[in-house]
Amino acid sequence: MITVRRAQAGDGAILHAMVRALAEDHKLTQYLTSTPQDLEAALFQSHAVVDALIALADGEPAGCAIWHRSFSTFRGRDAFYLEDLSVLPQFRRRGIARALMRELSCIAVAAGAISIYWVMMDWNASGRALYEGLGAEIEPGINFCRLTGPALERLAT
Amino acid sequence: MITVRRAQAGDGAILHAMVRALAEDHKLTQYLTSTPQDLEAALFQSHAVVDALIALADGEPAGCAIWHRSFSTFRGRDAFYLEDLSVLPQFRRRGIARALMRELSCIAVAAGAISIYWVMMDWNASGRALYEGLGAEIEPGINFCRLTGPALERLAT
Repeated sequence: MITVRRAQAGDGAILHAMVRALAEDHKLTQYLTSTPQDLEAALFQSHAVVDALIALADGEPAGCAIWHRSFSTFRGRDAFYLEDLSVLPQFRRRGIARALMRELSCIAVAAGAISIYWVMMDWNASGRALYEGLGAEIEPGINFCRLTGPALERLAT
Repeated sequence: MITVRRAQAGDGAILHAMVRALAEDHKLTQYLTSTPQDLEAALFQSHAVVDALIALADGEPAGCAIWHRSFSTFRGRDAFYLEDLSVLPQFRRRGIARALMRELSCIAVAAGAISIYWVMMDWNASGRALYEGLGAEIEPGINFCRLTGPALERLAT
């Protein structure tokens, strides 16, 4: 039995465990410096940038979607950017990611967003299968660029 | 003489011309359905998602950066997502994109953002040269995924 609900105050630790699972899959745990408290503070403040859904399998937290509002300058309409979609390892292959994407679609459409977009690594075959099954367009040949740390500080001076 | 200022009400048409230049470079004009009025309405409302900078060359609008707030779940800190960086063709190779990135870095750091991130097509050699020169990390092997139109509506029902 899978249900999906909006994340609420007190869910920071659950969400952090799910973000950790994602970092482990991507072999990126060395970059995971956030704490459960960081997520709690960021998500459950009055002007939060990000919002989240939590999927429950038989009442147990099993996965999450974390997203924020964006805007398509080409379409002139609001969009949603999906930051993280994560299912804890023990709950995989039960339709949880799909249930999260379905609920997120409902929220996006209700909010007047014209699209949901996200990035995916080339090697993510199970992600690709899921997203293709949902009818997503998948465009290869993209680079993810990031200015951070000393490079950001240097440019800002 | 290059200066950079924050976009302000009335800049919708200028920004749209710059978004059009970007669409032309990417051979994506068939997807450009926004109007100058759409950008005017989106940027200059009380709860705007996006914000913009305009670069002027000898007082003439020459380029823009359009961005919005984001959040890094890995780092637990706010980030900026750079949606568009565009310089009108007649103003290229004069350091305008760099001036825009520099001003955006100042705004990001002042806002407590830990990074600025964006996506770039594989073929964009001039973008790559600029971003590498700024010290940006560039990660290949990414797919851009988008759920929109009938596929989004179908999933939301």
